[in-house]
Amino acid sequence: MPPLDQIRIVLVNPIYGGNVGSACRAMMNMGLSQLVLVAPRPGMNMEEAAAMACHAGDILNNRRVVAATEEAVADCGLVAGTSNRGGLYREHSKTPREWAPRLLEAAMDTPVAILFGSEDNGLSLEDLALCTQFIRIPSSAAYKSLNLAMSVMICAYELFTASGTFVPPRDRSQESTSSRREAMFAKWRHALIDIGFMTTDTADHMMLGIRRILSRGTLTEKDVQILLGMAAQTQWAANHLPRKPNT
Amino acid sequence: MPPLDQIRIVLVNPIYGGNVGSACRAMMNMGLSQLVLVAPRPGMNMEEAAAMACHAGDILNNRRVVAATEEAVADCGLVAGTSNRGGLYREHSKTPREWAPRLLEAAMDTPVAILFGSEDNGLSLEDLALCTQFIRIPSSAAYKSLNLAMSVMICAYELFTASGTFVPPRDRSQESTSSRREAMFAKWRHALIDIGFMTTDTADHMMLGIRRILSRGTLTEKDVQILLGMAAQTQWAANHLPRKPNT
Repeated sequence: MPPLDQIRIVLVNPIYGGNVGSACRAMMNMGLSQLVLVAPRPGMNMEEAAAMACHAGDILNNRRVVAATEEAVADCGLVAGTSNRGGLYREHSKTPREWAPRLLEAAMDTPVAILFGSEDNGLSLEDLALCTQFIRIPSSAAYKSLNLAMSVMICAYELFTASGTFVPPRDRSQESTSSRREAMFAKWRHALIDIGFMTTDTADHMMLGIRRILSRGTLTEKDVQILLGMAAQTQWAANHLPRKPNT
Repeated sequence: MPPLDQIRIVLVNPIYGGNVGSACRAMMNMGLSQLVLVAPRPGMNMEEAAAMACHAGDILNNRRVVAATEEAVADCGLVAGTSNRGGLYREHSKTPREWAPRLLEAAMDTPVAILFGSEDNGLSLEDLALCTQFIRIPSSAAYKSLNLAMSVMICAYELFTASGTFVPPRDRSQESTSSRREAMFAKWRHALIDIGFMTTDTADHMMLGIRRILSRGTLTEKDVQILLGMAAQTQWAANHLPRKPNT
């Protein structure tokens, strides 16, 4: 089973359906699917939950609901608790980025739980006592407390990123070759002389500036084609278009 | 001015007050404060915005509202656009983690804008044309589209993390020294022999197991004090407590 499928998001005593739904969407965005609610508060707004879950309704509908945290984590190898407060236990906390590789490694062999406390109280000392790892999400001293679904997102994002599942899109057009770039610069040199932007005397100097502008990042084969086409057309225009009377 | 104060979150055509409020909270959690709304949709629910902003009401109240994206970014050095679609422009995108150092560096000298499109349409081609950088937030192929406020959070989180503002809490108690640990193990050796857990013959072997259990991570001076106290009391109990009749 891929490790992300073995990682369980456990929300303890959540109050707001909107947060639970948002957490579902965040989970699906980041390749997670296992949701457990521990004793959700009575009267949770499930319509709001479904609205915020958006296309992640399956995660919401397949949630497991249990009465106690022990039950939610009984079969788990690692149990990581999130908290932004200090104090006994929590001083050994690390960031989600620091823990992610360890959690993914464990999830190769065993279910792994990540615990999130309620919107008002966070995790209790009893919940924290079940934890083998403590997670502290980096946040500003000016306002440390993240929204519940946001906390789920940050942890899920770090796990997803560390899992290597995501392959960033790269340009489909290949890097151009030096000879293609030189052909393009030669074409521009001609065209810029022909339109009177520079003379043969100043051309070398001006072309250095133009090379600098066009050599700051990638120049793909597609880019070179566009620039070649512009140069060719510029040159054609210089030699063929009728001059306006006032020039 | 610290670079995070020069980074502007620009929401183009946002629909939902709840998302704008959530974005404010995410920004404050991550040390950002400059919010600009470009042509927010009429009838935005500002009560919902205030509720979701929670303690970040100042960011919401100090928002700048402009009619066009050009106006929001006119004074900015870099303009980064977020998009999860491919196509022209966007193939040169990098992840927020990849761009964060570059954006922070630029923000030492000039305002920097990060653009987020509307909940329904994302950024338009006109908006993307203003961008000098393209950001692609990693997400699962199964569900690529993140909630607007979640996208703001991921970008803000990466900028905050890269800024080095956050100093993770570390244990206040120092790592114990080898001689303190050895004193603690010696105490346990005595106590475990006295309570009959092991004999002098098996003690060396058993102590290796116990050393292994207690040597997996950090053992702070505070930890060693707790373990020493337990050993001392165990030994005392073995020698002083009256035996129960049935043993």
